[in-house]
Amino acid sequence: MEDTNRSWYFAERPAGEPDADCFELREEAVPEAGAGELLVRVEYLSVDPYMRGRMRDSESYAEPWDVGDVLRGGIVGEVVESNSERYDAGDFVTGEGTWADYSVLDADDTAPVDPDVADLPAYLGVLGMPGRTAYFGLLDVGDPKPGDTVVVSGAAGAVGSVVGQIAKLNGCRVVGFAGTDEKTRWLTEELGFDAAVNYQETDDYGAALDDVAPDGVDVYFDNVGGPITDAVFTKLNLDARVAVCGQIAHYNDESVPTGPRKLPLLIAPRARVQGLLVGDYATRFGEASEQLASWVASGEVDHRESVVEGLENAPDAFLGLFSGDNIGKQVVRVAE
Amino acid sequence: MEDTNRSWYFAERPAGEPDADCFELREEAVPEAGAGELLVRVEYLSVDPYMRGRMRDSESYAEPWDVGDVLRGGIVGEVVESNSERYDAGDFVTGEGTWADYSVLDADDTAPVDPDVADLPAYLGVLGMPGRTAYFGLLDVGDPKPGDTVVVSGAAGAVGSVVGQIAKLNGCRVVGFAGTDEKTRWLTEELGFDAAVNYQETDDYGAALDDVAPDGVDVYFDNVGGPITDAVFTKLNLDARVAVCGQIAHYNDESVPTGPRKLPLLIAPRARVQGLLVGDYATRFGEASEQLASWVASGEVDHRESVVEGLENAPDAFLGLFSGDNIGKQVVRVAE
Repeated sequence: MEDTNRSWYFAERPAGEPDADCFELREEAVPEAGAGELLVRVEYLSVDPYMRGRMRDSESYAEPWDVGDVLRGGIVGEVVESNSERYDAGDFVTGEGTWADYSVLDADDTAPVDPDVADLPAYLGVLGMPGRTAYFGLLDVGDPKPGDTVVVSGAAGAVGSVVGQIAKLNGCRVVGFAGTDEKTRWLTEELGFDAAVNYQETDDYGAALDDVAPDGVDVYFDNVGGPITDAVFTKLNLDARVAVCGQIAHYNDESVPTGPRKLPLLIAPRARVQGLLVGDYATRFGEASEQLASWVASGEVDHRESVVEGLENAPDAFLGLFSGDNIGKQVVRVAE
Repeated sequence: MEDTNRSWYFAERPAGEPDADCFELREEAVPEAGAGELLVRVEYLSVDPYMRGRMRDSESYAEPWDVGDVLRGGIVGEVVESNSERYDAGDFVTGEGTWADYSVLDADDTAPVDPDVADLPAYLGVLGMPGRTAYFGLLDVGDPKPGDTVVVSGAAGAVGSVVGQIAKLNGCRVVGFAGTDEKTRWLTEELGFDAAVNYQETDDYGAALDDVAPDGVDVYFDNVGGPITDAVFTKLNLDARVAVCGQIAHYNDESVPTGPRKLPLLIAPRARVQGLLVGDYATRFGEASEQLASWVASGEVDHRESVVEGLENAPDAFLGLFSGDNIGKQVVRVAE
């Protein structure tokens, strides 16, 4: 074990797009685990779009970071010291930790990780918060029926890629929007999406939808917002459901974004639009984790992680989310 | 009975705001009732905002009118000739008829009217389609709970005025937006709204809401759209419900209206937004009519109709909806 611990701190609130000035790496002593706590050597840490919201100085669903706070997020790692009966040194766990080499977690806020079921980074993606978001967001909010057309924005991301596969398992026709040909190929050739649109190659998303979703849209799982979403809202079928999971296109907006009004489009189809946060399903996380692990084990749900090497590059990994650098779940390898 | 029948025809599709050129009054022979039909002397006819949608040359929930079609809508009147066992001459009925002195209706598509329960025009308002829209829209889509703050736009209209009163009967705090002091006084002094905002007297609807709905908005019943709606969406509480009943501010728009994006505002409160059409509740119309008639009889729900005199003025009555001329339900008195 090293003597020192590198940790990323929140150095400056961004105006618009965040940059390297928002982050500061400090070297400190390795922290000590108190009663019931674990000292964990971080192997992978998660960077997620919702963290942009924590950089704002305003109340939202995730507590805002104050300048000077250590950055926190999902981690997976190996227990170095355990002050809990639940774990022994050498066990692998996941939970909310710090962007650091070593992190102290309350054992009660962690879940065990079995490296034989899936590689460690999968526990930050398909078997972690993004997978559970896909599971509850699609099944509970989207309420897909066999034969429905399900459209997913950000379809090659950590959440969207799982949404589409669960929709296929429910007998739906699935269409994804993603930003590179590599991504759209992954969706259609590996994950079983019926069609995928590279949104960088057209700006007529309405025409693209007429092509790939000729029967209209029954379920829209939105991770993105912006003009793709504007087009989908003009194609909603009777009783369509829209799950608003994320709006990454707008997270860096400093003024209120404007666009075509959507409420007039909801009346004729009697569409339902609903915001979702996975935390609301905490009492059912076990159900989701079990089902997702089973699908991953059987190969019915495939997954992929984009790995940035080195804790020192964690800010770059985070910033890359906003330019769509990742395919599947973006993680940072800190050690292994 | 007169020999001739005046009927309004659709003469021209409007671009933007409709005007008198869209309507043409013709004199014709009084129509004859066929088997199962009734010849009805129209006493009151209904003009409703949704009819603006029928003037467009595009499919929507209400079948579009073709140029040259006779104008149709809700009427209440007296049976002059009955070819149905359900009615005798002299009975009063309501149903969809024509903007005319006399109209032929299929008896099976009508409902009997009891002038002792309420005056005839009430059967086009609180006891008709607008009342049922308020009933199902608020109770089924809005799902109000005791203690909720319910905000209603177009609150002094045919639907909104009933929505607010049903919300009060359900133990809610009710706030209405309306466009004149006479309207806001009616809401608070006669109908029991807790507060009402004259939206002509401020353009800071956010500040107005902070004043009259300091605990945020649990249910928003939207008849209007536009900047009032924009402000309400910034005040939605956890698990807020929005019933999108109408968007009259946008019915005359010829290009797609733009405004602040609302989807980013739905995530933190996990708000649900749903379009509604009363026709979806047709199998439950009996329940609503019975309950509304009971509330009207007991005085628990008050109602008001704005009456324009004379069939010849029906287009003016319709056009007045878009400048908010009406308090309560707008009707046209054809004969009585």
